[in-house]
Amino acid sequence: MNRGTAGSRAQPGAPLDADTPGTVRLTVAQATALGENALRRIGYPEEEARIIVDQLVDNALCGYKFAGLPRVLAIAHDEKTRQARRPVRVVHETPASALIDGGNNVGYISVYRGAEIAIAKARATGLAAVGVYNSYYSGRNAYYAERIARAGLVAIHVASAKPRVLPLGGARPALGTNPICFGFPSAAGPVVFDMGTASLMWGEVMLFAHIGRELPEGTGYDEQGRPTRDARAVLRGGVVPFGGHKGYGLSFAIQALGLLAGAALARGQVQDYGFLFVAVDPDILVPGGVFPRQMAELVERVKATPRQPGVAEIRIPSERAFRERERRRKEGIVLDRKVVESLEAL
Amino acid sequence: MNRGTAGSRAQPGAPLDADTPGTVRLTVAQATALGENALRRIGYPEEEARIIVDQLVDNALCGYKFAGLPRVLAIAHDEKTRQARRPVRVVHETPASALIDGGNNVGYISVYRGAEIAIAKARATGLAAVGVYNSYYSGRNAYYAERIARAGLVAIHVASAKPRVLPLGGARPALGTNPICFGFPSAAGPVVFDMGTASLMWGEVMLFAHIGRELPEGTGYDEQGRPTRDARAVLRGGVVPFGGHKGYGLSFAIQALGLLAGAALARGQVQDYGFLFVAVDPDILVPGGVFPRQMAELVERVKATPRQPGVAEIRIPSERAFRERERRRKEGIVLDRKVVESLEAL
Repeated sequence: MNRGTAGSRAQPGAPLDADTPGTVRLTVAQATALGENALRRIGYPEEEARIIVDQLVDNALCGYKFAGLPRVLAIAHDEKTRQARRPVRVVHETPASALIDGGNNVGYISVYRGAEIAIAKARATGLAAVGVYNSYYSGRNAYYAERIARAGLVAIHVASAKPRVLPLGGARPALGTNPICFGFPSAAGPVVFDMGTASLMWGEVMLFAHIGRELPEGTGYDEQGRPTRDARAVLRGGVVPFGGHKGYGLSFAIQALGLLAGAALARGQVQDYGFLFVAVDPDILVPGGVFPRQMAELVERVKATPRQPGVAEIRIPSERAFRERERRRKEGIVLDRKVVESLEAL
Repeated sequence: MNRGTAGSRAQPGAPLDADTPGTVRLTVAQATALGENALRRIGYPEEEARIIVDQLVDNALCGYKFAGLPRVLAIAHDEKTRQARRPVRVVHETPASALIDGGNNVGYISVYRGAEIAIAKARATGLAAVGVYNSYYSGRNAYYAERIARAGLVAIHVASAKPRVLPLGGARPALGTNPICFGFPSAAGPVVFDMGTASLMWGEVMLFAHIGRELPEGTGYDEQGRPTRDARAVLRGGVVPFGGHKGYGLSFAIQALGLLAGAALARGQVQDYGFLFVAVDPDILVPGGVFPRQMAELVERVKATPRQPGVAEIRIPSERAFRERERRRKEGIVLDRKVVESLEAL
């Protein structure tokens, strides 16, 4: 999930979300209670509901509207939710690694467990690799990388998925949308960079199909492998990687890293979901706790770069999202009344 | 260093390099002796000459002409070669990590040492992180990642550098060309993906300046921060990241990972050279030696993707380079006679 670093922004001082008719403004506490109660009513234990909603509210605070509480409705109506689930469990481990069977639980839970185990192991040994398989949608990768960075560790996190993306020259999808994410502790607060390797997020394709809007030229292909801007046709086909052969190569590498996370163990397929964390205590490489200060200095120096005419600010990855989060914590989260009513009706 | 996965190719069967007037065709053994002898004459000990030339010949075999033996001339004439050098040494380590002072040696040597230490530590502990600082040009990252993959390990390798790349909205460089590279062991031979995060390799800018060719529109800026296609002006300015905000974010993340490799320890600057390896024994995550087989299956499946009309083959990262290497091992390496004469005159 990635909104970029140069997207459009609200005017300084103006509320980030307008109170238009048909919307409801909730405090963080109200939004959290709404989400947790809905999840408990569809069978999620209290702790799992807390874990899922903590991310969804954070996504909403950071400005990722469709990754917020509406996802509870998606979870409720996903057929996987009705399939058998087993508790998340470690199936293989060493002092510095763990392989985790997600038990067909939604990634919000299993990948959260993976991040927690990566933090614990990296704190104990200095360096950890953790893989999670037999799971699916994990939401916003920056959420996990930020948790790891706030624990004082450097995070690399990738997620492979089932085929949605065409390889270069291909007429059918062979790779997932395969995001990559980095998290860094810094004396001035964590820095996180998160990107997908597809030209569009799959959620965008679904949204465009839902509202009947055309996709950007050259991004989508139908199930016959023909280029099309019709998002509904692309849902049965796929999208191209971002950035030509570089995006294709990155996507391929992330699919391979997904195998390291156990992707092929879920259904015997090498093109499947796999979530990998590498967490590093910076002190094992540059001792004396200097990394967070150096990181803050890097941020400061990049921000101080002389600017092109008309550019107000050089922005650092995650800066916009974290600023918006601070504001929305005070201003509240605006939700469509229909979403609130649907959640209350679960 | 990256030539992409969809570049132009020689006709099947035709020699990869034409024997045009002014060129010399050498066997691998002849090219190796030529390079090693030249390096020994400018003061490199036998083992260092062997390490440097092993990569340069491999680069030439894989089709990266300017990354081959001509680099010996660049090393000979680089002012850093005349500056004091100290032996490469480990300055801090744990069972799973090492921080290496490159002693102002060229990266061909210090980063090679880093890769060797990463292999040894990952074999011993399952997982290793190694950083190299106080060094510079290390050549082709895929060379190191392939060595790690041939040792049965998964490799992640990034290299930060001094500022050549403008951040989004910036008028001056603040980031290095910052490549990222992945290596995977596979039952059908290693797979390596290597890319720069700049819109152009710095070597391309130097080459274009040398031959007086214009840079692609929108890639370069002069020292005043004004867009220009004049490569000589861009040598005093910088280039933009590839792929907009995604390339910028990746470049930023790699600059930060360079800090983890000790970049700021060389000259007290956070924007400097740092070479980081993470090496993982796949068995610590997916035990039983299954990873290389799964990897070969992933390659096979992606290659078997139905193709767009007119596309002869779906290519996998590193496939073209490794195929060319096999052919050039038989056909030999073609060098400009002037390069050969200059090497012999060192």
